[in-house]
Amino acid sequence: MQELYVIKIGGNIIDNAGKLNSFLQQFSKIKGKKILVHGGGKLATDLAEKMSLPQQMVDGRRITDAETLKVVTMVYAGYINKNMVAQLQAEGCDAIGMTGADGNLVLAHKRIHSNIDYGFAGDVDEINSELLNFLLEQNLTVVVAPITHDKKGQLLNTNADTMAQEIAKALSKLYQVTLVYSFEKNGVLMNAEDDSTVIAKLDTNKYKQLKEEKVIFAGMIPKLDNAFTALGTGVSKVIIGKAEKLEQLISGDSGTTLLMKA
Amino acid sequence: MQELYVIKIGGNIIDNAGKLNSFLQQFSKIKGKKILVHGGGKLATDLAEKMSLPQQMVDGRRITDAETLKVVTMVYAGYINKNMVAQLQAEGCDAIGMTGADGNLVLAHKRIHSNIDYGFAGDVDEINSELLNFLLEQNLTVVVAPITHDKKGQLLNTNADTMAQEIAKALSKLYQVTLVYSFEKNGVLMNAEDDSTVIAKLDTNKYKQLKEEKVIFAGMIPKLDNAFTALGTGVSKVIIGKAEKLEQLISGDSGTTLLMKA
Repeated sequence: MQELYVIKIGGNIIDNAGKLNSFLQQFSKIKGKKILVHGGGKLATDLAEKMSLPQQMVDGRRITDAETLKVVTMVYAGYINKNMVAQLQAEGCDAIGMTGADGNLVLAHKRIHSNIDYGFAGDVDEINSELLNFLLEQNLTVVVAPITHDKKGQLLNTNADTMAQEIAKALSKLYQVTLVYSFEKNGVLMNAEDDSTVIAKLDTNKYKQLKEEKVIFAGMIPKLDNAFTALGTGVSKVIIGKAEKLEQLISGDSGTTLLMKA
Repeated sequence: MQELYVIKIGGNIIDNAGKLNSFLQQFSKIKGKKILVHGGGKLATDLAEKMSLPQQMVDGRRITDAETLKVVTMVYAGYINKNMVAQLQAEGCDAIGMTGADGNLVLAHKRIHSNIDYGFAGDVDEINSELLNFLLEQNLTVVVAPITHDKKGQLLNTNADTMAQEIAKALSKLYQVTLVYSFEKNGVLMNAEDDSTVIAKLDTNKYKQLKEEKVIFAGMIPKLDNAFTALGTGVSKVIIGKAEKLEQLISGDSGTTLLMKA
């Protein structure tokens, strides 16, 4: 099977022009097929603030009312996605930006939760791997913004980590997929305050233990749950680490590599 | 040659949910291959106002400084493009939204003008008709936002009428192209104040005469110049008329049809 890299870029990289540029340069140098999935929460929060639109987060997830949906659609699918595409084009990488609505790429439904109304938040139902594969075969690099739709005309705000995991999983039937979660830290850390304490290899047993010991907590838990789900459902390799070290992440010289068992 | 419709939607339709929906329903019913090009200036002006960003227009063209470029990228490529795509998907039309940066669809350069600095305004150099044709062959309907790039990483704000004309022209080598400019009026009018005074057929001679008599003026002149350029360079048919009457525009029962000579 041919190799495919599904790379998520998030955290505080997207709003830092220098770091983002370094990441995109390294990304465009990856040989072979690749997909980039981006977040951009901080820039969305900034725009909401400029528009005097109060934002509410529950467990790191944004409550997406109609006006907030408009903001995230503008920021993710418009500003961030198109600037990344233009920068990748400048690096000689033939990028095409998409949301889940485009070509019905990611079908989702409005999240139903027993006691929290997340508003227009989408949970993924299906990835159009046929279309993705078809674009990849044309040597296009797909850049995915975390906006989905319900095929009834409604856009939905969707977690970018989950989007990356679902895309990686769906394409693992056609490719040997490496999923990279890149962000502002060096990897999964033993001490969240110390970027030098990277856990080089993390398996499911150790993960369970570190969660119990509260060494791993907060936002890292949904990220790692997503990552282990991917690994358990066909994805060959999952690596977590610093965006500006993308090259070393892929070569195995940086970051945390996840493993299914010890 | 196979038929292709290139349809521009603009004016005060895009910010009117009811009219836009009626247009999109009719658009999705057009049989065969089609491309939609949209503007959205009014919504961009609204967002700029919310962000306290003063806007400056010269001859109907927006002066695009860095912050304004951000606004139009968010509004055109994000909000408008993705909502249209989601609505078309709901109508069973397999739409994919793109800017000129995506897949290097529309290459442009920053406008150079002897005495006006338009800022990040782009003039079109080249259409990637190979990619467009390739997507059309997959029965995808391409929805184009009027944002281009210079392949050096810079996004550029581009006139949507011109985008439609350039796309129509480029694809006329592969298809028999009908170009429709749809907006809030019934067509080219003898009396700009009276929507019942549509000129059913307008040829180049009559156009020249009506311009001299100042019957045709202001924003209609660049629109018609674009339209006649298209007609003179391979496009089979150009029709101008009301967006909510798209079906009748295409059947020839409404709007103004342009002709090369009397």
